[in-house]
Amino acid sequence: MFVLGIDPGLSVTGYGIVAASRPLQALAAGVVRTDPRAPLSQRLVELFDDLSAVIAEFGPTEAAIEEVFVNRNLQTATAVGRASGVAILAVARAGLRVTEYTPSAVKLAVTGYGDAPKDQVQAMVARRLGMTEAPKPADAADALAIAVCHLQSTGLRRLIGERT
Amino acid sequence: MFVLGIDPGLSVTGYGIVAASRPLQALAAGVVRTDPRAPLSQRLVELFDDLSAVIAEFGPTEAAIEEVFVNRNLQTATAVGRASGVAILAVARAGLRVTEYTPSAVKLAVTGYGDAPKDQVQAMVARRLGMTEAPKPADAADALAIAVCHLQSTGLRRLIGERT
Repeated sequence: MFVLGIDPGLSVTGYGIVAASRPLQALAAGVVRTDPRAPLSQRLVELFDDLSAVIAEFGPTEAAIEEVFVNRNLQTATAVGRASGVAILAVARAGLRVTEYTPSAVKLAVTGYGDAPKDQVQAMVARRLGMTEAPKPADAADALAIAVCHLQSTGLRRLIGERT
Repeated sequence: MFVLGIDPGLSVTGYGIVAASRPLQALAAGVVRTDPRAPLSQRLVELFDDLSAVIAEFGPTEAAIEEVFVNRNLQTATAVGRASGVAILAVARAGLRVTEYTPSAVKLAVTGYGDAPKDQVQAMVARRLGMTEAPKPADAADALAIAVCHLQSTGLRRLIGERT
């Protein structure tokens, strides 16, 4: 099983593909960028098309996305909301089910501490995936962390027999 | 020329099609609803598909959408942001250019007053379109108002020779 993790943003959306092997293994990590000078509609089309291409290339079977971080301002929430709406659509139209995780759930899953600083999350996710260092840019590493969080959560749900 | 006006929302998205005739004429007005009990991903797919079907049926040549109203709370801004991202994507993928208008720009265009109450905007848009009363629900009437705003703005821009 391959899990696609997505850290959505209008300018930069991080993605990471993690295989549910033992140990977990990162298959890909990168970002989709859109041109800030382009019209919003064109940026959303680019994001949709590029993310759909990533899904087609790596064939993940499940997806996980970070919930919009609600402590930001309204304008950021709107931009991230639009990007995440389009990202969720790309995933859903590819036939994948998508689960949302809060930033603190991701931190908790990866480091055992929901308020862990960003660099600690990145160092830990790299170690969990057997990488010598966290991939750059940070959005790609964050996307891997989201995929790891999903694998860990679904693994736990299976252990306790809950239907996911 | 037919203009598609969109009042985006996750539960209810209003749409209206207005012909650039003299006087202006409403060709269609309605809403796309998504099931609040369904997963978010399914709701966004429904919104995308239904809005794409409206575009295919009526063949608008331009689109206008209301900007997310920034005085709401963050959770609403996120939900509306996701819906509007998906709506803009549906329009852009159909090859239409889309222009955004603030709620006060729409009110100003329709009533001449940027702080006009909602029922006044609806009564005025019905009158402008030669309808005996505003279409229900309110989201459909709001979508017509957005289309009227766009036609009026592009008409003004043409008069003053600005490239749009």
